Amino acid sequence: MSDEKAVVLLSGGIDSSTTLVLAKSEGFEPCAISFDYNQRHKIELNFAKRFVKVIGVKEHLIVKFDLRRIGGSSLTSDMEVPKREEVKLDEIPMTYVPARNTIFLSFALAWAEVINASSIFIGANVIDYSGYPDCRPEYLNAFEHMANLATKASVEGKIRFKIIAPLINMKKSEIIKKGVEIGLDYSLTWSCYDPQIFEEEDVTKPNKIRKILKPCKKCDSCLLRAKGFIEAGIKDPLPDYIFYESFDY
Amino acid sequence: MSDEKAVVLLSGGIDSSTTLVLAKSEGFEPCAISFDYNQRHKIELNFAKRFVKVIGVKEHLIVKFDLRRIGGSSLTSDMEVPKREEVKLDEIPMTYVPARNTIFLSFALAWAEVINASSIFIGANVIDYSGYPDCRPEYLNAFEHMANLATKASVEGKIRFKIIAPLINMKKSEIIKKGVEIGLDYSLTWSCYDPQIFEEEDVTKPNKIRKILKPCKKCDSCLLRAKGFIEAGIKDPLPDYIFYESFDY
Repeated sequence: MSDEKAVVLLSGGIDSSTTLVLAKSEGFEPCAISFDYNQRHKIELNFAKRFVKVIGVKEHLIVKFDLRRIGGSSLTSDMEVPKREEVKLDEIPMTYVPARNTIFLSFALAWAEVINASSIFIGANVIDYSGYPDCRPEYLNAFEHMANLATKASVEGKIRFKIIAPLINMKKSEIIKKGVEIGLDYSLTWSCYDPQIFEEEDVTKPNKIRKILKPCKKCDSCLLRAKGFIEAGIKDPLPDYIFYESFDY
Repeated sequence: MSDEKAVVLLSGGIDSSTTLVLAKSEGFEPCAISFDYNQRHKIELNFAKRFVKVIGVKEHLIVKFDLRRIGGSSLTSDMEVPKREEVKLDEIPMTYVPARNTIFLSFALAWAEVINASSIFIGANVIDYSGYPDCRPEYLNAFEHMANLATKASVEGKIRFKIIAPLINMKKSEIIKKGVEIGLDYSLTWSCYDPQIFEEEDVTKPNKIRKILKPCKKCDSCLLRAKGFIEAGIKDPLPDYIFYESFDY
């Protein structure tokens, strides 16, 4: 592996996890950045934490702020996450979070400048998320242009920042096939926007209660995941029934 | 006043406070956004809170995150704030914070989308801060271009975001004169990067200790403020000796 660090946005889902492993396979030392923005599906951060441990990522920065104070999305407010039988992403969904990728990339840019990383990897994808404005190439190009005017390192000519979105034109099934090909274990990833957490008696230890985590299977993110695995002809290794404490990092 | 809301970045210093009052004088309803980024001079937030109360700003959002986790600046690390006898800002100073305005403007953009504000005001200034890359017009234009590709409201044609920097070509003395002209009381603003806080016995209430706040008078920000008031021919109304508790919001 080269010594060149790259900042990789890591949510804990399929796309960002695949992106991280791709960056690593291209010889970068991936430095993961995740965001605790008080999202409904904060559980994804536990998956991200486990993922970086398993993959052996040396640096993982979790930046915390509260987007519920701003709202405007079913992921950061009390609005309900839409549930459906089939994926429908031709319009911008309720799960769109205002300026989320811009906020995420801004922190990634700050960190990249400090650790001297010119490449910022993001798992943005224009096929599955055609409705999300901040997943399109024209947006990412505009961010890159702005980034190179924004920092000391770039205006002094020490770094030329590149926003790299290796999955931008891939379907979910292609992403999954690519990930499996390079050895990624997708049971380490989480997609559901509306995780169900409940308690049950631990039959192995009477009188002890344990927490169970289940994906809802009806939100857009669950549906896209299921569709991706079906189209890829691969069984999703994520169990339907997860002992919460087993990965409470 | 019109009903049109505008988001105004408010640090609590001279430039952003003047910008807010200018936005108000132009008929906008200013919605202030401030940032607790674990800056060394967090005291500025108390000034910002008091300022919005005095001015009568209805909405004030304070977004909290920790830029010390990222570092790279004497304002967000244990590096010392440079102290001098004279302002010297021909190179990018140690007090430059990586990608700070990009992070600030990203949150402002998210909030602007949610509250349906097309104008985002920032007190950026290219004269005094010629060394700061993210205070230059080319940077602000690039951010504006990116912003209009980034959000649901802009790609659907509902909002065209404008980044407005009314002070961009003004000297500090011109800013101060302008502010005084429109009735701004600069004793409500704070500039020092390295506030000195000490305790002393309260002579009016024996055995009671009170906290005193003083600007350092030697950091670039103090020096620029002093130079601005001298050149404007106006006495700085900020006292040298402030009872901390009197405005502990």
